[in-house]
Amino acid sequence: MRTFQPIVAIALLLVSFGSTLAGAKNAAGDERAIRDLDALWSNAAGAKDLDKTVAFYADDASMLPSNAPVAHGKDAIRAVWSQFMSMPGYAMSFAPTKVVVATSREMAYEIGTYQFTANDAQGKPSASPGKFVVVWGKRGGQWKVIADIFNPDK
Amino acid sequence: MRTFQPIVAIALLLVSFGSTLAGAKNAAGDERAIRDLDALWSNAAGAKDLDKTVAFYADDASMLPSNAPVAHGKDAIRAVWSQFMSMPGYAMSFAPTKVVVATSREMAYEIGTYQFTANDAQGKPSASPGKFVVVWGKRGGQWKVIADIFNPDK
Repeated sequence: MRTFQPIVAIALLLVSFGSTLAGAKNAAGDERAIRDLDALWSNAAGAKDLDKTVAFYADDASMLPSNAPVAHGKDAIRAVWSQFMSMPGYAMSFAPTKVVVATSREMAYEIGTYQFTANDAQGKPSASPGKFVVVWGKRGGQWKVIADIFNPDK
Repeated sequence: MRTFQPIVAIALLLVSFGSTLAGAKNAAGDERAIRDLDALWSNAAGAKDLDKTVAFYADDASMLPSNAPVAHGKDAIRAVWSQFMSMPGYAMSFAPTKVVVATSREMAYEIGTYQFTANDAQGKPSASPGKFVVVWGKRGGQWKVIADIFNPDK
């Protein structure tokens, strides 16, 4: 076996080096994929497309809205978004300030800001900007929202 | 080279299988480590130990408090905790409901609930329970808080 060892060692090194390079390259691709998904998600939410907005969540996702209990699973998450979208003067958009992908490329987190507007008691648009953290996870090769929490700045 | 190939393949399989097993075992250890840290962190926060509370954050951490802007870095995070701890009737504790560690074991997320109490305008204790998401990252082999966001239930 002694003569095989260098060959095995070299093979392992090459595989390790290659997978590290590939991992770094693909992690950048994953960040790009998440940023692209986030833009589509924001567009869907802004367009009051309830089905499309909810489709970005994993089946086992948790949404943690301000001033409301945790929403577990798509039905509960759908109810929260439905309530938001039915508010008079509803307008919504959001975008990341940071996306970081785990080197294992099956978990990532995003920090971002949102612009939310709804009419006040006098029927005038009232902006309530805020911030959020979204945890993304891979489900069947596709990035999905696993946890979604947000709060207002003021 | 043809005769070496099965040996190389078996070696790679063994290394791969071994590291998968070790990864799964150690990921459980990481979850335990994070839960232990979380308990110590909650104790420090409850005891108004400002230095110890802030020590759980990474230098580049972000804290996203409700009704306030994002706090980047330890000085800004310290200022937020200092403000909380100086509130009359301050009491705080928190605990995880879920901790998930990435298979690469350098990123994890935690979902949990907190109990926060402070005196109201009449000087009577007013409880404001809530929920949070914390993203953990490994810094120099040690788990540190990378992102910390929370909001009230009501």
